[in-house]
Amino acid sequence: MIDKFVQYIELPQPTLGNNTADAERLKNAIKQKIECSDNEKKNGKSSIFFPTKLVTDLPSKLRKWNHKLKVVIFKNSIGWQLIDIVEPNRDKPCFGIAADLGTTRIVLRLINLETLQACGEIGFDNPQASIAPDILARIHHARTDRGLNELQKLVISAFNEKINILCNGYNNAHNSCETHHSCYKSGYNKAHEADNTYKIDSKSIYILIVAGNSAMTHLFLGIDPSFLIREPYIPAINAPEPLEAQELGVDINRGGMVYLFPNIGSYFGGDLISGILFSELHKKDAPCIMVDVGTNAEVVVGYKDWLIACAGAAGPALEGGISDMGMTAKPGVIDKVKIDPVTGEIDIHTIEDKPPIGICGSGMIDLAAQLFLSGMIDIRGKFVPERCGKRFSEKDGVGRLIVAESEDGIGSDIVLSQVEMNSLTSSKAAMYSILQVIIEKTAGLQFTDLEKFYVAGTFGSFIVPKSAISIGMLPDINLEKFEVLGNSSLEGAAKLLTNPYLFDEIDKIREGITYIELNVNQEFMNIFSGAKFYPHTDISRFPSVLSYGA
Amino acid sequence: MIDKFVQYIELPQPTLGNNTADAERLKNAIKQKIECSDNEKKNGKSSIFFPTKLVTDLPSKLRKWNHKLKVVIFKNSIGWQLIDIVEPNRDKPCFGIAADLGTTRIVLRLINLETLQACGEIGFDNPQASIAPDILARIHHARTDRGLNELQKLVISAFNEKINILCNGYNNAHNSCETHHSCYKSGYNKAHEADNTYKIDSKSIYILIVAGNSAMTHLFLGIDPSFLIREPYIPAINAPEPLEAQELGVDINRGGMVYLFPNIGSYFGGDLISGILFSELHKKDAPCIMVDVGTNAEVVVGYKDWLIACAGAAGPALEGGISDMGMTAKPGVIDKVKIDPVTGEIDIHTIEDKPPIGICGSGMIDLAAQLFLSGMIDIRGKFVPERCGKRFSEKDGVGRLIVAESEDGIGSDIVLSQVEMNSLTSSKAAMYSILQVIIEKTAGLQFTDLEKFYVAGTFGSFIVPKSAISIGMLPDINLEKFEVLGNSSLEGAAKLLTNPYLFDEIDKIREGITYIELNVNQEFMNIFSGAKFYPHTDISRFPSVLSYGA
Repeated sequence: MIDKFVQYIELPQPTLGNNTADAERLKNAIKQKIECSDNEKKNGKSSIFFPTKLVTDLPSKLRKWNHKLKVVIFKNSIGWQLIDIVEPNRDKPCFGIAADLGTTRIVLRLINLETLQACGEIGFDNPQASIAPDILARIHHARTDRGLNELQKLVISAFNEKINILCNGYNNAHNSCETHHSCYKSGYNKAHEADNTYKIDSKSIYILIVAGNSAMTHLFLGIDPSFLIREPYIPAINAPEPLEAQELGVDINRGGMVYLFPNIGSYFGGDLISGILFSELHKKDAPCIMVDVGTNAEVVVGYKDWLIACAGAAGPALEGGISDMGMTAKPGVIDKVKIDPVTGEIDIHTIEDKPPIGICGSGMIDLAAQLFLSGMIDIRGKFVPERCGKRFSEKDGVGRLIVAESEDGIGSDIVLSQVEMNSLTSSKAAMYSILQVIIEKTAGLQFTDLEKFYVAGTFGSFIVPKSAISIGMLPDINLEKFEVLGNSSLEGAAKLLTNPYLFDEIDKIREGITYIELNVNQEFMNIFSGAKFYPHTDISRFPSVLSYGA
Repeated sequence: MIDKFVQYIELPQPTLGNNTADAERLKNAIKQKIECSDNEKKNGKSSIFFPTKLVTDLPSKLRKWNHKLKVVIFKNSIGWQLIDIVEPNRDKPCFGIAADLGTTRIVLRLINLETLQACGEIGFDNPQASIAPDILARIHHARTDRGLNELQKLVISAFNEKINILCNGYNNAHNSCETHHSCYKSGYNKAHEADNTYKIDSKSIYILIVAGNSAMTHLFLGIDPSFLIREPYIPAINAPEPLEAQELGVDINRGGMVYLFPNIGSYFGGDLISGILFSELHKKDAPCIMVDVGTNAEVVVGYKDWLIACAGAAGPALEGGISDMGMTAKPGVIDKVKIDPVTGEIDIHTIEDKPPIGICGSGMIDLAAQLFLSGMIDIRGKFVPERCGKRFSEKDGVGRLIVAESEDGIGSDIVLSQVEMNSLTSSKAAMYSILQVIIEKTAGLQFTDLEKFYVAGTFGSFIVPKSAISIGMLPDINLEKFEVLGNSSLEGAAKLLTNPYLFDEIDKIREGITYIELNVNQEFMNIFSGAKFYPHTDISRFPSVLSYGA
């Protein structure tokens, strides 16, 4: 069993009695380091792909280095592969990059493949947004002349530009990183303290692991994404082969490998597989659930014996899905709200304590929970004017509530309208309905059977479970069961860089998962209607809300 | 079980109930066509490598072709690989090329991968000879600045030039082919008659299989060959990975694959592995032997239970080895000799009945056999002047025999000197000694235990076994056991193009073979001394020679 992608090797000297070729002698030495997987043991051999370009000058290198060397290896479902051979005493370490390839945001993390420490991270907007903000429009653009090529080039160029920044010191990189929040949550701060500044050669980067949804993965690879969005929603490929960096034009070591997490369907992408890998859902002893609250609500439930994934077409049917609530988290955005049930006073918290500029999704949930608990909205989610007091008004017949007044005349009031409240109500009802269908109808479980409730995705990072339960968005289970995973897509990709055997686990996850497209049928709509109340029509589902409720 | 590298596939249409991605649906359909090997069955899956560049426009192609297509696939020890997808009704067939990469001569054969028919062949001198005629000098040149690159470029350019000729019609190709002889022997004439002229696009060529000795293989791949010839004689690589044609610069389909037969040592190359594959030595029910009489004497003995290969350093120690005898076969070269034992009249036959210009190796053996049987040489291989008559003379104290007088004053007499006879004596003794060591000392058999005696190599093609036995070069066994294989290196490569599963057999051959370096020790020299007599000191070893002998 080897633990890292970089290994130190000492070869036996060639003799007349052992005339095995140099390449095969090196292969054999690597094999001895590898504890073969079950399949490899059955075969009696583990295959190691040895690119010919690494053999051309191997004989003289081996003899110059006295048959001692470092090797950078890579593993995938087919077998092991040699990426490079390196002087044994070289002081420059070898690196890898983990990438979360989001539709909106991309985050890269630089990891030392020898110490396994993170030593830089950079976040940036997906440059494809300049062509089209959402997936659908990008896919349509990909069908125009040269459109696919243009989209691919945009993202690859952005990767190269940001990799270059990462190579020139994590400090710069981190300053331009706007995801501080998730960095700290993910324990990335340790890495910040461990290393200071860093300058590395991009040729020292040997592996790039990319986790993205199915559409972003197709575009990254320059693969026609047209049929992802047309019934019956067929990806061009589920599990792309790892590619050489030079084939994609990624500026890392020219023999370096680029691996993209596989998808299991148009709406269940590699970002989620990466999240499962990170949460270790597939290894749990009792059923758990992972919910990625992104553009669609994507849900996986299961444990070591089975996994059911559910995603898809429900999103659009449900008025913009769940992530439509609020604005992106950034300084000045209201992320926490507290309302005094007696005075009705609203106490807001903004990111970095800047003057308020809007409300983010988690702030919306907090706000709705507090409005409901203080009686300022009713069980249908409608404003109760007599409880709202002077903060409430009507404009063109639509109720509105001032959440925060402009400070000293700077900026404008932060207002929540009944329309936005209705949208929130639909969204929270959709979320709960999807969960109910999967857990109760599909898996045949009760919510209380769940041992863990993982909330994944950037949006999910900021959700306060207690508030989400209060409005009936998340099921009313023990708060200790909730665990926020942060950017689980990035974390799964980063984890993969620390252990070659995880490639096997990814294959097992992908092959073992049962994928169900969410059908918006009459039964679903009935469930959905019941969930549109605060917290729910069936109040027995939310005993804890009753106990502290209005 | 699939029988060809080109397969016609019909895919199931994608539906909501079967949302497998296009690439994976194609993979599954190919898998259904493949009867998995034992290992693949054990794994429960057979891996198929699907290059990303074939996925980029797969969705639209599949739909345009209504989910019907032809695939070109390739197989190696790691698994299957998709090379290309082709319109189902395309009338242009897909091709492969088999190559015998000799130190002196290169032969390419074009094969239709769908009909499995040969449809063109071209032979040409290895252009590296312009830099250095023999292996040793080429390896030294490879160590000079840019020398390796220069040697590689020469041979790749020659391949490209001749592939281009092959593509423009076999007729042209065949006219420039100087190995007619072996073409006809190998059944190639059938192909000649079947097809007439042909013009194909080099992009229709998908596979190039190359069988060459270890040094030629290293140079073809641009791999440092230095240590092949330095003790302890270590190749840089035994089994090179198949490469994409574009990586090597070979002008066939850019995704086409180039496979080089593996070697099992510096002196036992892919040409011999190819020969074993062709002769099916590894499948025989009783011990057989294959002898490649080339630059060195390379020998494999064995059958389905074991294989022992023997080659190497004996050659140089034995005064130039065996192939040093005579000149290359070409029109005008004496290839058969008959001497009237009574009159001493010499009756020669030349290739294509042209006026004699020299003697080739097989002619030399025939000549020596006839000289011995007619008493014109004695048991030490020395001329017997009184039996040779007026054809014999001395020049500077060295005996010489006129084999053929110049015809009508055109050209010069063809003369055999005592020095050449001595060299032949050494060579034939070396051959027999090697055989004796391997069969009797190493394998513990008697010559009579052999079921088949295969003579491989271009030189071997022309040997008349009866003559070789007469001079004590080959063992005195039933003449029916001898079988001349022709250019077995080319034939093995061509065979591989007709059956993907043969890659597995090559691996089995290579892994199962025991390789023994021939040691020129005192014991060997004793055996060698005994073999320097005509036919042998131990005359009981050649009963049949006695029965018709002098």
